[in-house]
Amino acid sequence: MQMTRDIEDLIDRALSEDLGLGDPTTDILIPHDLLGSSVLIAKEDGVLAGLDVALAVFKRVGPELVVETLISDGSQVHDGDVIAKISGPVASMLKAERTALNFVRRLSGIASETAKYVQRVSEFDVRIIDTRKTTPGMRTLEKYAIRAGGGYNHRQNLGDGILIKDNHIQALRNRGLSLAEIIKTAMTESSHTIRVEVEVEDLPQVKEALDAGAEILLLDNMGVQEMAEAVAMCRGRAVTEASGLINLSSVRDVAASGVDLISVGALTHSVAALDISLDLDSSTVGSSSPAP
Amino acid sequence: MQMTRDIEDLIDRALSEDLGLGDPTTDILIPHDLLGSSVLIAKEDGVLAGLDVALAVFKRVGPELVVETLISDGSQVHDGDVIAKISGPVASMLKAERTALNFVRRLSGIASETAKYVQRVSEFDVRIIDTRKTTPGMRTLEKYAIRAGGGYNHRQNLGDGILIKDNHIQALRNRGLSLAEIIKTAMTESSHTIRVEVEVEDLPQVKEALDAGAEILLLDNMGVQEMAEAVAMCRGRAVTEASGLINLSSVRDVAASGVDLISVGALTHSVAALDISLDLDSSTVGSSSPAP
Amino acid sequence: MQMTRDIEDLIDRALSEDLGLGDPTTDILIPHDLLGSSVLIAKEDGVLAGLDVALAVFKRVGPELVVETLISDGSQVHDGDVIAKISGPVASMLKAERTALNFVRRLSGIASETAKYVQRVSEFDVRIIDTRKTTPGMRTLEKYAIRAGGGYNHRQNLGDGILIKDNHIQALRNRGLSLAEIIKTAMTESSHTIRVEVEVEDLPQVKEALDAGAEILLLDNMGVQEMAEAVAMCRGRAVTEASGLINLSSVRDVAASGVDLISVGALTHSVAALDISLDLDSSTVGSSSPAP
Amino acid sequence: MQMTRDIEDLIDRALSEDLGLGDPTTDILIPHDLLGSSVLIAKEDGVLAGLDVALAVFKRVGPELVVETLISDGSQVHDGDVIAKISGPVASMLKAERTALNFVRRLSGIASETAKYVQRVSEFDVRIIDTRKTTPGMRTLEKYAIRAGGGYNHRQNLGDGILIKDNHIQALRNRGLSLAEIIKTAMTESSHTIRVEVEVEDLPQVKEALDAGAEILLLDNMGVQEMAEAVAMCRGRAVTEASGLINLSSVRDVAASGVDLISVGALTHSVAALDISLDLDSSTVGSSSPAP
Amino acid sequence: MQMTRDIEDLIDRALSEDLGLGDPTTDILIPHDLLGSSVLIAKEDGVLAGLDVALAVFKRVGPELVVETLISDGSQVHDGDVIAKISGPVASMLKAERTALNFVRRLSGIASETAKYVQRVSEFDVRIIDTRKTTPGMRTLEKYAIRAGGGYNHRQNLGDGILIKDNHIQALRNRGLSLAEIIKTAMTESSHTIRVEVEVEDLPQVKEALDAGAEILLLDNMGVQEMAEAVAMCRGRAVTEASGLINLSSVRDVAASGVDLISVGALTHSVAALDISLDLDSSTVGSSSPAP
Amino acid sequence: MQMTRDIEDLIDRALSEDLGLGDPTTDILIPHDLLGSSVLIAKEDGVLAGLDVALAVFKRVGPELVVETLISDGSQVHDGDVIAKISGPVASMLKAERTALNFVRRLSGIASETAKYVQRVSEFDVRIIDTRKTTPGMRTLEKYAIRAGGGYNHRQNLGDGILIKDNHIQALRNRGLSLAEIIKTAMTESSHTIRVEVEVEDLPQVKEALDAGAEILLLDNMGVQEMAEAVAMCRGRAVTEASGLINLSSVRDVAASGVDLISVGALTHSVAALDISLDLDSSTVGSSSPAP
Repeated sequence: MQMTRDIEDLIDRALSEDLGLGDPTTDILIPHDLLGSSVLIAKEDGVLAGLDVALAVFKRVGPELVVETLISDGSQVHDGDVIAKISGPVASMLKAERTALNFVRRLSGIASETAKYVQRVSEFDVRIIDTRKTTPGMRTLEKYAIRAGGGYNHRQNLGDGILIKDNHIQALRNRGLSLAEIIKTAMTESSHTIRVEVEVEDLPQVKEALDAGAEILLLDNMGVQEMAEAVAMCRGRAVTEASGLINLSSVRDVAASGVDLISVGALTHSVAALDISLDLDSSTVGSSSPAP
Repeated sequence: MQMTRDIEDLIDRALSEDLGLGDPTTDILIPHDLLGSSVLIAKEDGVLAGLDVALAVFKRVGPELVVETLISDGSQVHDGDVIAKISGPVASMLKAERTALNFVRRLSGIASETAKYVQRVSEFDVRIIDTRKTTPGMRTLEKYAIRAGGGYNHRQNLGDGILIKDNHIQALRNRGLSLAEIIKTAMTESSHTIRVEVEVEDLPQVKEALDAGAEILLLDNMGVQEMAEAVAMCRGRAVTEASGLINLSSVRDVAASGVDLISVGALTHSVAALDISLDLDSSTVGSSSPAP
Repeated sequence: MQMTRDIEDLIDRALSEDLGLGDPTTDILIPHDLLGSSVLIAKEDGVLAGLDVALAVFKRVGPELVVETLISDGSQVHDGDVIAKISGPVASMLKAERTALNFVRRLSGIASETAKYVQRVSEFDVRIIDTRKTTPGMRTLEKYAIRAGGGYNHRQNLGDGILIKDNHIQALRNRGLSLAEIIKTAMTESSHTIRVEVEVEDLPQVKEALDAGAEILLLDNMGVQEMAEAVAMCRGRAVTEASGLINLSSVRDVAASGVDLISVGALTHSVAALDISLDLDSSTVGSSSPAP
Repeated sequence: MQMTRDIEDLIDRALSEDLGLGDPTTDILIPHDLLGSSVLIAKEDGVLAGLDVALAVFKRVGPELVVETLISDGSQVHDGDVIAKISGPVASMLKAERTALNFVRRLSGIASETAKYVQRVSEFDVRIIDTRKTTPGMRTLEKYAIRAGGGYNHRQNLGDGILIKDNHIQALRNRGLSLAEIIKTAMTESSHTIRVEVEVEDLPQVKEALDAGAEILLLDNMGVQEMAEAVAMCRGRAVTEASGLINLSSVRDVAASGVDLISVGALTHSVAALDISLDLDSSTVGSSSPAP
Repeated sequence: MQMTRDIEDLIDRALSEDLGLGDPTTDILIPHDLLGSSVLIAKEDGVLAGLDVALAVFKRVGPELVVETLISDGSQVHDGDVIAKISGPVASMLKAERTALNFVRRLSGIASETAKYVQRVSEFDVRIIDTRKTTPGMRTLEKYAIRAGGGYNHRQNLGDGILIKDNHIQALRNRGLSLAEIIKTAMTESSHTIRVEVEVEDLPQVKEALDAGAEILLLDNMGVQEMAEAVAMCRGRAVTEASGLINLSSVRDVAASGVDLISVGALTHSVAALDISLDLDSSTVGSSSPAP
Repeated sequence: MQMTRDIEDLIDRALSEDLGLGDPTTDILIPHDLLGSSVLIAKEDGVLAGLDVALAVFKRVGPELVVETLISDGSQVHDGDVIAKISGPVASMLKAERTALNFVRRLSGIASETAKYVQRVSEFDVRIIDTRKTTPGMRTLEKYAIRAGGGYNHRQNLGDGILIKDNHIQALRNRGLSLAEIIKTAMTESSHTIRVEVEVEDLPQVKEALDAGAEILLLDNMGVQEMAEAVAMCRGRAVTEASGLINLSSVRDVAASGVDLISVGALTHSVAALDISLDLDSSTVGSSSPAP
């Protein structure tokens, strides 16, 4: 993945959180010239994401560390798989360990969960997409992990798509505007590069939105039967997105309704880390200096 | 909570992620002078944390917004409870909404999960503590949420405690040092303000560590019976911490072993957000300007 | 306009450029408690933009300065018009003067030039839009100035629209891909929230792009006759954008071709500042302290 | 030129403006391993400035890109000249293109315009100098471009020279101080490392300023005849600077008055970019991977 | 003093150094609503500098703290003098205490030492000036403290004055350039706003530099007799600066030589802090909440 | 030493302070391709600290400079010792010189003074430790220098140790809490990883603190006789730290009292820089270009 200033800054901030006062345990115990090698190893099955970030953490702490990637982001990993090898000063490995793992474990957790949804709906022509419900400061990386897991991204932020949500509609209804009027204003005034999406809650709204020219309809919290009817109405006229409390149990039924997109907020806001750990290789540790 | 530069910066970065290109939907549809009020409302039961941060997000986007706190961090909330009221320009509310919710939902998720563990072991004299397995960039806030949920914090970073872990011991064993020698070096060389904790895996290691003067023993992945024996050996000599794959089902048994501290990494690395949303109040919306 | 962290940072950087070593001239000559008032005054006709930024500069240097806006961004100003009044410590005014003017003069220059183009094509149903040819660090403000002058914005950055340019096509042609294949890949793989625009150079390309489903066609450097034919082909099928060496003399003819959008890079990359200056009001200067 | 932290930061900010959300067009269409070469090519005559910054942009986006400088800053370029060659991953070239060009086009525009003024007065012993009317955030680079064009720099900021301007004089006159008294205060109190310059508007002020010891006189908006008289009065006593609405038509007459320095604000505040573009080389594109 | 972004940033960094992990002692012991008042009090005689910065630290930590200045920067303080009063939440006072004191104690130390030199040479027409030998990150504040103590500033940085030092001369001598040639190049090429100073070591160099037009001579490590001769040679032709190992014992003799300026590096690189402390007022502490 | 983001940032800020406007003296006089070599040389005896930072400054200004370390941090240096060699472009050396020296001179000053204290008490089993009385922005480096001089660090900040000071006790006494109650609260509520230290002023307080379980006693401003009695009371029960106005004359007597730790604030707040300078090597300067 592209290492931008924003990602480099996030790495530096994460290291500052953990290493800001140094690492007295390691500084006291581990000689600076003690060399060794270690492996990043998967402790459960899943899909890998964020390895480049984790390895960049190791390099940031110990520029002299040598890292080797064995499995790439987006690949399936199994319990026991060696993901990467790291060799060089042991002290640098130990100082970077927790921060590096915090990145790759969370991002792989997101990719792994995404992959489960994608796999569950593989027979349908539908995309699993994310939301803007990401962890503050982590959006770019979390949306990258969604893609690593086989998902697609919804808006990256408020600026790369028009999405008229319930609160917009509510605020303007109080001022006497119809849904159709709202949509037409958005169609007229928005940039030519982005599409207009509208959140709708029932079939009459679907009809009104379609007639007003909406290009994407977000079907919010509809039952699958109602959703199927909405999809039928939209065919050839608008893209459909299902949203609201969708989980691994229900996602197949939702997909069967024929929607084009299924957005799942939990992929970023309620996900478990994938268990990955750093194991120091016992046999290769060595150094020319006497023990401390 | 204390609003430090680091938290203000994180708020700014989170807003930049979401609002960096502006919010064309709101800019096009919602008149600048449209006033209204809204509420932050709990959609499920839990413990609140991070409300001050969420409200600071609203104030950062719309300095003219008026916010009122109804429930404080650390309090129990129930589905339907109104947590806070926000009034002023509707456009500012809508621009801040997602970023504000991303903070308070995640932090309340952590506090709520912590509170479940704390409640589960309430009859024992034991503390639920966190780990350094936090989301990059969010450590201070996530550790704050742990306290809001009734938990306590382990080390904030590598610098405010000595913790000799398996990888340290492994690296030094290869050089012929005994566990006792390692501990003594740490005791001698470390700052007088911080204590020395050692990760041990079985009872012989417990004995060796105690004899060498370790002040805290991290009992890693021990069975509860073995843990109870370790606790008995440590009584009056060292503080004990249980660690490793502890969940809501097992935590009560672990506590019964008599340990002083139980650390649970999942509290920060694998937690679900608490459902909280912003509802615009339909009746109070009004403005002196004509509709757009 | 919304004062974001990015704009506040830019103000701080601009002040650091000019005031980083202090202002010895003012510090030596002007007593700290010398009060006075001054006006921002237009020295030529144009359209105002960036006044809020300029006033924020004055407030940043002298928080005790009182500023009063007489003319708002987006309004026409004439030579001699008083735009704003500033009163308080004279020293603060003089320290902020140049930095404040550098903002409002450049942004008003952009708005004024934009307004000339908009006025020139007012009888047509066409939008004047900008490009990404902005001054490094100033994009948000420069695109704001375009809107203040009555123009519209093209993509804010590479991420909020798909635009397949000549270099993309060139690179892929070498690999044997047809324009149609390129467009279809983009249609399939891009986010559902953004549209696909394609740069075309002649009528056969227009036809190929339309048939492949392109939603916006950038007609690059076409003659007006050819452009009119392209527009006719696109009617009801795609939005058309004219681009390439368009100036105030030619823009009316381009508009007459029927295109929907005319993009003008010179609006941001080759524009003259609008002459605005700060005049100290001679009569109201006063202070209770003796002369220095 | 020296790559300082400030310039690196500006590059990063400019890239963040353009690439903050990634480049989906390129990511979707151009394979990561597609290699090629391209050239930066002048599309009109002028003087080059900022090439190092542009190339640093390419290297920042694609560290693996290889860049080769063919023409150096400060050199004359002609329409069609190849300025630099870039080879490596095509995707990186395309992502960096606009940001790189925005730098080198603006800076070369400044250098080219400066060179025209310098050339126009080449038979006189006079320097063309800039002002502090620079684009916010770009001062160091814009003043560098002035030098590349054969000009010289006036004050870099308020701190590296004393310049008593009309507003200073106005503020102090109201308190009863004469121009001579003002100048003497400045001479006495200022640092020994910087000189005292005074803005004067007519010959009596010239005389008063000279008698008070002013070392540099800024002759503001004087006619050329009056300016020549002022220069005669200053000979051997003070350096003279002409300022105010000087353009390419009038600059030769101004120079003929005998002034030492001619400052031209338009060189930075109202300048057209020099047309430079990136052309992908069609013949050399290749890669071992199959088409996307 | 003017609170710039740079000073605000330095305050934030200093607080981050000390409060980055919070203040558990105060958090555990002092109730949030415990109110009290305290004083900043001088524990020895000296000259005050940096009080505004110290008070800004208190306000940054506790915006609700009320601060009152009793003695201003630049004033003499005596052992026991109350410099400022602070009232409000005791916890905020205690968290800010050390960082606030670190600023005002160091800066007052510099001002106090400067004042001793100034007082020692008060009968001569000479200025005590500083050097660029300042603490990294503290230059603006340390140079401010010099002025508070009655001294003057030499160059603020390498850019606001030309100073040809021994290493420049050495490098160019090796290439066959004479001192006179070096000076003439500098006179010709440097900005018209700054003067040319030259470091000289003996009387022949003084003569050569004067003849070449140097405006300021830095007399480095000369004996007082030689210095007096140099001063005589320079009278009416150049300003003279004495430099090199000058201390409180020798400064009067140096001043007697007639030099215009005496620069003392030790004022910033080797100075003792002035003893100032925060005393909590025992009688006024109170709060409505029960003890913790 | 580990080059963290914080240290790199401090280097950049320090360079910005000194080189923010460039170095016109060097730019005008020294040809870009003039090569040479120079040495960092000690001008008095002491202990070296901060050499890596100084060399990083040279490399930051001139990446092409080659640096060679001859003496390492923590080593004794004598007047005339060559500490490091630097070769490459002379202009880069001269631009970096002052900033590099400002770091290594101050840090070596701290290390040298620390070493004097350490040497003075070498026959006792006692540690010389620092305080939080550091220069704003320099804490990490100054505490590093303490260690280079043979000292140890007290708390790095407020978060890595509990220290109940006089102001805490004063605030709580007013609310009726005894010293014992205060200590017990701190023992109960603080993190298990850090120890509780208490400031005491007389023997009754020593007894009360010991009985309450305090683990470290800070004996503030006690006479050596009283201190010896306090030490006797604490033996086997608590660590003792002497503090308050300890200098090189008194430190041996304090150590003789048997305390474990002696903290000396002056090591960081009132220390003289060690004299180190950059000498350009006259013989090796050369370049292929003609003189300027």
